[in-house]
Amino acid sequence: MKNKPIILVTNDDGIIAPGIRTLVHTMNSLGDVYVVAPNKPKSGIGHAITMDTVVYCDSVKIDNGIQKEWECSGTPVDCVKLAINHILPRKPDICVSGINHGSNSSINILYSGTISAVIEAGIEGIPSIGFSLLDFDWNADFEPSKKYVWKIVKKILHNPMEKGILSLNVNIPKLRKEEIRGIKICRQAEAKWKESFDQRYNPKGRAYYWLVGDFVNFDKESDTDEWALKNGYVSVVPIKFDFTDYSTLNILKSWNFILFIFFLKSSLF
Amino acid sequence: MKNKPIILVTNDDGIIAPGIRTLVHTMNSLGDVYVVAPNKPKSGIGHAITMDTVVYCDSVKIDNGIQKEWECSGTPVDCVKLAINHILPRKPDICVSGINHGSNSSINILYSGTISAVIEAGIEGIPSIGFSLLDFDWNADFEPSKKYVWKIVKKILHNPMEKGILSLNVNIPKLRKEEIRGIKICRQAEAKWKESFDQRYNPKGRAYYWLVGDFVNFDKESDTDEWALKNGYVSVVPIKFDFTDYSTLNILKSWNFILFIFFLKSSLF
Repeated sequence: MKNKPIILVTNDDGIIAPGIRTLVHTMNSLGDVYVVAPNKPKSGIGHAITMDTVVYCDSVKIDNGIQKEWECSGTPVDCVKLAINHILPRKPDICVSGINHGSNSSINILYSGTISAVIEAGIEGIPSIGFSLLDFDWNADFEPSKKYVWKIVKKILHNPMEKGILSLNVNIPKLRKEEIRGIKICRQAEAKWKESFDQRYNPKGRAYYWLVGDFVNFDKESDTDEWALKNGYVSVVPIKFDFTDYSTLNILKSWNFILFIFFLKSSLF
Repeated sequence: MKNKPIILVTNDDGIIAPGIRTLVHTMNSLGDVYVVAPNKPKSGIGHAITMDTVVYCDSVKIDNGIQKEWECSGTPVDCVKLAINHILPRKPDICVSGINHGSNSSINILYSGTISAVIEAGIEGIPSIGFSLLDFDWNADFEPSKKYVWKIVKKILHNPMEKGILSLNVNIPKLRKEEIRGIKICRQAEAKWKESFDQRYNPKGRAYYWLVGDFVNFDKESDTDEWALKNGYVSVVPIKFDFTDYSTLNILKSWNFILFIFFLKSSLF
């Protein structure tokens, strides 16, 4: 790479979150940094886009860093779309998202705005990495993360990606620097949230609900992100955006819907 | 199935949309129908969940059908979570979502609240199907869809799903009944939106943006949902919620991050 790389930075915790501030400052040593991030927290927003209303996106100065920054009223996916199509001087060399305050391992990938931004950049053919620290605290210690963030981004920037390796989901355990055992390449663990709804009543007596839940990992294998994180490693899961379940395509094809429709000729329709 | 099946119905166009009304009335002949759907349109909301505020969910009567209905202030995924964990008498036998006003083929799966509801039910181990008609019009003609919706749901209800076949993304072409050529089992086409932002200024002179875009299909193979729909078929894509890109796991493992970290010992950190 002869010219300085262009690095797009976004997140879902909002542009002033300590996690993205750490990411921005770490990226400043690797390229020209453009931050386009939500103007307020958008956790759990998934791959939402803004279609029925307008989006504001204003140039801002958050700190004394050399990066250029825009805060956006939309979602993390809106931020990536706006950055690529409107704000950046050219397609970025990489898009990094985070550092998220809290885990985006396993199934959390689906709910996470941080990772949706990464997937959106991947769809555009841009190498992209989501970083998350397993600590929800606003004042989480991002210091031990910096080394891994810097090294993984540098590695990806200097290795033009083979077709298909575009997006990575990186989670970092909540440990002291010397306790982290290294990096593990993993698959997404089979896990889910076991939810309940806390029912309350507003002052007028109308019922409302708070979503509460516990994360449950059913996957006991040692090649998953959950295993890696539990055992002190930084987990790296390559991700893609083809939802097709190829393993079941042939089973479905054998069902012969046409024959089934023939048998149902005398039915309701 | 000895007892009458319990059918959960939701969507992202809102509980009064003609698409979900068609789906509800079609399902009433197949089981006990519980509708838990957003109280207003939530298109493009993806897999968003409501975490930072409360959710209202009230019993309503929309028409004279025999179904039971609740309208919810949250997202389609919230609706599924609330239905399963709080409203339904037991885990439903199937969850159907739609009929969406507009396509959810190919990459649209990521942005669609309709399909996110289907994926959420799949995570809970519930067979689930998303239905979409390729017509954005509020007054779209859902009549030709009814036959296919009924037959696919009946087929799934009477075939206990093998492990892994849980969720289907069904799209229906905008054609007259006699023009639809049948059902095709497909994979998700490689396609994306080519976007731009329409920049305008509000009355106070502040710039804002409208997202506009064109759908571009790069995939010229004949085994995709886009091909099926273009050629007059109802497309059925089995979907899953493991984002791991298994094809690139080994390439990444060969990168040897540990060695890389060794070489960078004298670096920034």
